[in-house]
Amino acid sequence: MAVVVMKFGGTSVANIERIKNVARHVKREVDAGNSVAVVVSAMAGTTNQLVEWVREISPLHDAREYDAIVASGEQISAGLLALALHKLGISARSWQGWQIPIITCDTHGAARINRIDPEKLKKRLSRGEVAVVTGFQGIEQSHQRIATLGRGGSDTSAAAVAVALGADVCDIYTDVDGVYTTDPRIVPTARRLARISYEEMLEMASLGSKVLQTRSVELAMVHGLRLRVLSSLTEPENMPAVDVDRLDEYGTIVCSEDEIVEQQVVSGIAYAKNEAKVTILKVEDKPGVSARIFGPLADASINVDMIVQNVTPDGKFTDMTFTVDSTELPRALEVLRRVSEDIGCHEIISSDNVVKISVIGVGMRSHAGVAAIMFDTLAKKGINIIAISTSEIKISVLIDSDYAELAVRSLHEAYGLDAEEAS
Amino acid sequence: MAVVVMKFGGTSVANIERIKNVARHVKREVDAGNSVAVVVSAMAGTTNQLVEWVREISPLHDAREYDAIVASGEQISAGLLALALHKLGISARSWQGWQIPIITCDTHGAARINRIDPEKLKKRLSRGEVAVVTGFQGIEQSHQRIATLGRGGSDTSAAAVAVALGADVCDIYTDVDGVYTTDPRIVPTARRLARISYEEMLEMASLGSKVLQTRSVELAMVHGLRLRVLSSLTEPENMPAVDVDRLDEYGTIVCSEDEIVEQQVVSGIAYAKNEAKVTILKVEDKPGVSARIFGPLADASINVDMIVQNVTPDGKFTDMTFTVDSTELPRALEVLRRVSEDIGCHEIISSDNVVKISVIGVGMRSHAGVAAIMFDTLAKKGINIIAISTSEIKISVLIDSDYAELAVRSLHEAYGLDAEEAS
Repeated sequence: MAVVVMKFGGTSVANIERIKNVARHVKREVDAGNSVAVVVSAMAGTTNQLVEWVREISPLHDAREYDAIVASGEQISAGLLALALHKLGISARSWQGWQIPIITCDTHGAARINRIDPEKLKKRLSRGEVAVVTGFQGIEQSHQRIATLGRGGSDTSAAAVAVALGADVCDIYTDVDGVYTTDPRIVPTARRLARISYEEMLEMASLGSKVLQTRSVELAMVHGLRLRVLSSLTEPENMPAVDVDRLDEYGTIVCSEDEIVEQQVVSGIAYAKNEAKVTILKVEDKPGVSARIFGPLADASINVDMIVQNVTPDGKFTDMTFTVDSTELPRALEVLRRVSEDIGCHEIISSDNVVKISVIGVGMRSHAGVAAIMFDTLAKKGINIIAISTSEIKISVLIDSDYAELAVRSLHEAYGLDAEEAS
Repeated sequence: MAVVVMKFGGTSVANIERIKNVARHVKREVDAGNSVAVVVSAMAGTTNQLVEWVREISPLHDAREYDAIVASGEQISAGLLALALHKLGISARSWQGWQIPIITCDTHGAARINRIDPEKLKKRLSRGEVAVVTGFQGIEQSHQRIATLGRGGSDTSAAAVAVALGADVCDIYTDVDGVYTTDPRIVPTARRLARISYEEMLEMASLGSKVLQTRSVELAMVHGLRLRVLSSLTEPENMPAVDVDRLDEYGTIVCSEDEIVEQQVVSGIAYAKNEAKVTILKVEDKPGVSARIFGPLADASINVDMIVQNVTPDGKFTDMTFTVDSTELPRALEVLRRVSEDIGCHEIISSDNVVKISVIGVGMRSHAGVAAIMFDTLAKKGINIIAISTSEIKISVLIDSDYAELAVRSLHEAYGLDAEEAS
């Protein structure tokens, strides 16, 4: 008997048929004797409609009212799922953030969960009742107002509820059946990973893989909570119910490194398309110049990712290249134009025709030569590297976007990630 | 400076344009220095969509979940109106039932308001902030669950909030500009009443006039709260702001009888189309027969309105005629078929081809001859009266529905209610 938190996103509860399908997934767990809390997002489309209404009234809106409005989406889906469970003969009750309560900070629209009082839920779970919890929201304490966690926050809600309940696993149901060594649409031989470490998952998520929200993984990592990525599209009755000793049978488990027995050196290849490259030509090479470039960008809340600096032959000037999120390129250029005179630059060139390819694996910590394989593989295919950045468990390169698929495929093969047969 | 509660129904907040229009109505009051609480319904259509989803899952649903789901409609409209007010430079905050709190009983779906704690709202109003309150809902105390008041409950919410705040007036904005002596679509010379008593308004409402919800009028009557019926379709700037000494300038005031100086004997003519007539032929005329007919109907929660009993010439049998709401006719017939043998009846006939026409006026208490005028007028037009019922301030007759318009027009003229010119 396990305590299980199940999370279903907006696509999984997009209409009444799908909500009934979710109810069958929950029934499978209840029938197996597990204690279940379910966290749901709003029905797909609902939140967008609400946000559109808000924008129609005022593009600059009060965050408290915005939160009160958009939080209604999850209240609807949670109530409907509770009713669908009743219909299957399962005792269930919906819980809005303020009813539990899920206490958040007062940063409306991007609130963090401070704490969850698990007593009411625990009591209900212990008598066999399913708790259906609204994702994405809580209540802040200073004014007792509803606060939302920001888009995708339901993953975080699920992880937080699971931690509060001391759950054995937090199952995140999505439209994919797990985490893959790379995007199967690009590499048909990509393999589903049975397990992946928190650290690797965080790198994956930050690189644009949208399987799990970063904060949910961070939360799970801090508290040692096992997350699992599963598909909600599988027929509910074709999946095994949660058995803590046999979690590997289905999906991908996100867990701590030491729970992964056969750790590969490289776990996956990620790529991020939404990169843009900015090069500032012939900046004077003197102390403080970086600060005068990156300070104003930081002030404008623009995240700079990779940075490369080349010194010109005469040593007086330098070319500075860096990347930003492509959606922020126009704002970044505007900031740079303002500071260009100050830094004495001659020309700014930019392009969003670049991608970032990353090789990820905690095994890198103890294995040398991972970077060499990467550079060698790309060189053999004639792919030019524009910039490089590394972390303890990741090597990223920026390349021309024309070569994205070729690079991912070649690296996937080079690190021995291909499945034996195409799946 | 007055304390004003303004209530806007679903049609008045049906889309963003109309919500902005409502905001201008509120601004007029704020600009005049009045303290304002606004009570809103859900955007027209929203509640129906939510109810439809609930029914799709299960026609027999848990009332707590139903309430949690449908209550979201007002949360959206209240938040949007607060934002529209901000856009006009007005300080405003939305309030859900649980945040105030509005404490209700736990009869989910048809809850009654037990009490409202006005302290938070009063504090905000005193600093010039507008409170936008979700209509139709509160929180019940035993489980801290959202409870709704039943359809049309926002009128009741508004009256209850007004009583709690000690408001000078509760302005109910609708799609008509007041209460008329009769339906202007039938009688073009119908006049808008400047004032109507609570008692008369209750009779009007119970007779199918949907201007105000019955419970809101009862609440106002008990607490001596002045209600006013106004049109939300009038340009907000073309209406005067509330001035307690000049409330008569606009709409219809619902108030206590002694606040009405020139009380007419008859205030209005109402008609109810949704009547159905049932006749049980040749029932044995002996003690207890009525109980055996109306007992089972009451057990099935079917309201019986008018009852007429004729004795046959030989005195052994009786014909029993009564009316029920036409939507309940099939259920009523089913009940009667079950008991027909028991009561020894020979035949049951029914028709929904009838209407109830009522003459209403508190002046009847002190004036004789009101009924005589009614019967005389109808007789002159050759209209047959099927049944009659009376109260202290009302005479109702059941007639063939073909004569409905003729009867209303003739009575309206006979009691001198016609305006001097058609409006």
